[in-house]
Amino acid sequence: MKRGVLSNDHSDKLFEQIYDYVLERIRRGEWKEHEKLPSVRTLALEFNVHRLTVFKAYQLLKQNQKVYVRDKSGYYVQPGHGLSLDSRNDPIVSAYVQESHLSEIHQVQATYQFSKALLDPNLLPNLYFSEYVKKVFDLYPKVLGTYSTIQGDQELRDALCDYFINHYHFYLNPDELLVTSGSQEAIDIVARVLIKPRDVVFLERPTYSPAIDVFRRQGATIVPIEIEEDGYDLDQVEKLLQTHKPRLFYLNPTFQNPTGYTIPVEQRKRLVELAAQYQCLLVEDDPYRDIYFGKKPPLPLFSYDTSGTVIYIRSFSKYIAPGLSIAIVACRPSVMNLLVRAKSLADSGTPHLNQKIFLHYFFSARMQQHLEKLRIALSIRKEMMEEEFSVTDWKWSSPAGGFNLWMMLPESVPMDDFLSKSIENSITFVPGSICDPLRESKSWIRVCYSYLNEQKLREGVQRLISVYSSVHQ
Amino acid sequence: MKRGVLSNDHSDKLFEQIYDYVLERIRRGEWKEHEKLPSVRTLALEFNVHRLTVFKAYQLLKQNQKVYVRDKSGYYVQPGHGLSLDSRNDPIVSAYVQESHLSEIHQVQATYQFSKALLDPNLLPNLYFSEYVKKVFDLYPKVLGTYSTIQGDQELRDALCDYFINHYHFYLNPDELLVTSGSQEAIDIVARVLIKPRDVVFLERPTYSPAIDVFRRQGATIVPIEIEEDGYDLDQVEKLLQTHKPRLFYLNPTFQNPTGYTIPVEQRKRLVELAAQYQCLLVEDDPYRDIYFGKKPPLPLFSYDTSGTVIYIRSFSKYIAPGLSIAIVACRPSVMNLLVRAKSLADSGTPHLNQKIFLHYFFSARMQQHLEKLRIALSIRKEMMEEEFSVTDWKWSSPAGGFNLWMMLPESVPMDDFLSKSIENSITFVPGSICDPLRESKSWIRVCYSYLNEQKLREGVQRLISVYSSVHQ
Repeated sequence: MKRGVLSNDHSDKLFEQIYDYVLERIRRGEWKEHEKLPSVRTLALEFNVHRLTVFKAYQLLKQNQKVYVRDKSGYYVQPGHGLSLDSRNDPIVSAYVQESHLSEIHQVQATYQFSKALLDPNLLPNLYFSEYVKKVFDLYPKVLGTYSTIQGDQELRDALCDYFINHYHFYLNPDELLVTSGSQEAIDIVARVLIKPRDVVFLERPTYSPAIDVFRRQGATIVPIEIEEDGYDLDQVEKLLQTHKPRLFYLNPTFQNPTGYTIPVEQRKRLVELAAQYQCLLVEDDPYRDIYFGKKPPLPLFSYDTSGTVIYIRSFSKYIAPGLSIAIVACRPSVMNLLVRAKSLADSGTPHLNQKIFLHYFFSARMQQHLEKLRIALSIRKEMMEEEFSVTDWKWSSPAGGFNLWMMLPESVPMDDFLSKSIENSITFVPGSICDPLRESKSWIRVCYSYLNEQKLREGVQRLISVYSSVHQ
Repeated sequence: MKRGVLSNDHSDKLFEQIYDYVLERIRRGEWKEHEKLPSVRTLALEFNVHRLTVFKAYQLLKQNQKVYVRDKSGYYVQPGHGLSLDSRNDPIVSAYVQESHLSEIHQVQATYQFSKALLDPNLLPNLYFSEYVKKVFDLYPKVLGTYSTIQGDQELRDALCDYFINHYHFYLNPDELLVTSGSQEAIDIVARVLIKPRDVVFLERPTYSPAIDVFRRQGATIVPIEIEEDGYDLDQVEKLLQTHKPRLFYLNPTFQNPTGYTIPVEQRKRLVELAAQYQCLLVEDDPYRDIYFGKKPPLPLFSYDTSGTVIYIRSFSKYIAPGLSIAIVACRPSVMNLLVRAKSLADSGTPHLNQKIFLHYFFSARMQQHLEKLRIALSIRKEMMEEEFSVTDWKWSSPAGGFNLWMMLPESVPMDDFLSKSIENSITFVPGSICDPLRESKSWIRVCYSYLNEQKLREGVQRLISVYSSVHQ
């Protein structure tokens, strides 16, 4: 991905983290008074960010009298920087911030909803849902009167354990599964249990926006890992593993959100080995696995893991039953024990009813047939959208699965203007910058083809293109 | 409540907090080198704890060379205590601990389950549940295919807003309500949004055990407020408000868990005024309101609040539908905005299905009739349990509502032994110490009368009494 020039309003988050990072090393005494600090160029390389971002952090450090400048020679630690006397005056800037960038865009009401990566409810077999629900009440007449265990309904974990073993060759037992209220809860709990302020977290660039928000809220130092159509640059990843000793790498290797890219098998194997070697947990988020348009995607990273390095998060909300909010986490007992304790304080267990309905619905023959129909319906919508967009000068790689197109517009497009004019025209999309841990990617957008029916989809795209023409001559 | 003598294993949590507190004030320079520290007696009074707890904290500070002792004259700040040089060497001991004391006991399988404050599923109108569920699917055929908004289903918030206005004279609009996945999530989100390490939190003593765990995990400094049958000592509370400037007071003023006590009306009014005056938020947890055995309880604190001081958490899980996990939070927009953002990262909204089922079930005529039956059934069980326990030398105040008896046993009872022998006999109860922010209350236990049917309840109590006789001659 090409990086744009940083503007003040979009580089805030990352620059704060570099600010924190420098401050912390001074505080720890690793960098002493009058000692020369790493150059802007070095830090930019180390963090894989634009030099302006580092420059901005240094400027603020200078302004706050933590560093000083010697002409043409660089930045130095200010004597009497005050860090040792009262650490409360320099709190971690980034921790405790509860921000949710994606949900802000999702609050916009629009006729042509391309921002939410949701399934069109009409693509679900709604008429048959109540059958399964009735069945659940016949089988478990007291289901509404009882809590589930915190880790999740035993019957559901047994069934999913068999499913994972049969479909993906997981080496697994039901005690290594935790049922959560959707994948958002899973990501949140994993982050809360594993990440303390200043721990390093690798995130794909671009990535799922709420994951950025969650890890930033934990006060993590975020290092971006570029994802391209053919995967990661694993040599570069290895270097970053050496330099940063990250606690975890949150990744979405199959029909990635937002890009739709899929990491090839060989990279999966090597990444799992590297992660084990450098003791970096891999948090594999896998919400789109069943939505493939050609051949099935490669096995999850978890399938290749022999050393307990991978935490596997599988959401079933997106295409099975959004209204149930069921996801599952697979991991080894050492991490599972921590997750279960956190879950007991977070919500004392996912509702029992939802787990039982999901169990009977997901494993029904109808659901499995339905998935086939769903793939066809979504691939038609995707192709229709691509056809409509083919008249533009936008660029994208056609995804082999998932719900989204990740599109690069000309750099000259005034993106803020384009977004606000689109909203005025009752159209929403996700601006690329909120999917980017660096808050750059300003000429990219994510457009979802799964939510609108074919007619609305065509209308909406045509309308979006005409808004585009009006802001970009 | 009478305090027992602290033993090493039970006073751990509180002593750590006092340790943190002293350390922090030294670090901030409020207490300088060679300055005399507050006496053990003073700190014990200030924190409302046993002197041994303070003594233990000072002993560890001394051992870690942060303070020194001058014969007969007390504790002094050690020069060169090292706190200023590297704050990372003395992290907050208490933060980031994900502990869940109650859930550990709940994992014990037992025939005579007196530990979980749950409703007997047979007391719910299970046969009629499926009617309402079918109704929901008729009314909202796509309910499983759609997400709710993050703040909660509009129709449900509208209905609950009317309900609160009509029943409790709340001054409220639907935007001041947030639907959560049970009250545990509500407490967790409130704590995450409002509490940073070393913020002071008031907790009732005794209180709901998971609340202790949640606020401790946030790194709060916990100050206990004694609750007695006739309420709080509000003069003492006012002094503590002055001294500690707490961020919030988490309380359960109606049929309190575990004691069953209810704070009288006059105290409610005065407490709301005091809290407003000292800018302390009141987090009012109100899960048992409808389970009264005589007259209705006084109005919630929220009813008396005119300055946005009260955050009201109302769970409907306990006696309406545990399997749905629905609770609601009422608060003013300044706090609500923070809660909604945190909720969006915690689980992106409570499942839509559960909200719609709850809406139609709770507001049905049948549910309201059913509550009357429930009160009668539970009061019979409570009286039966009290009758069985009347042969013992245990002491308790008969609760006017709720699910629990809070009982004081003779101090000479070997509580650990009693609990483990009970578990061997397939009986569980909650030891008082885990309900106590000070981890004392060692001769108290919480016994729940709501879960077992009448026959099992009688059998279980008789069996418990015989275990008691065997450990305590």
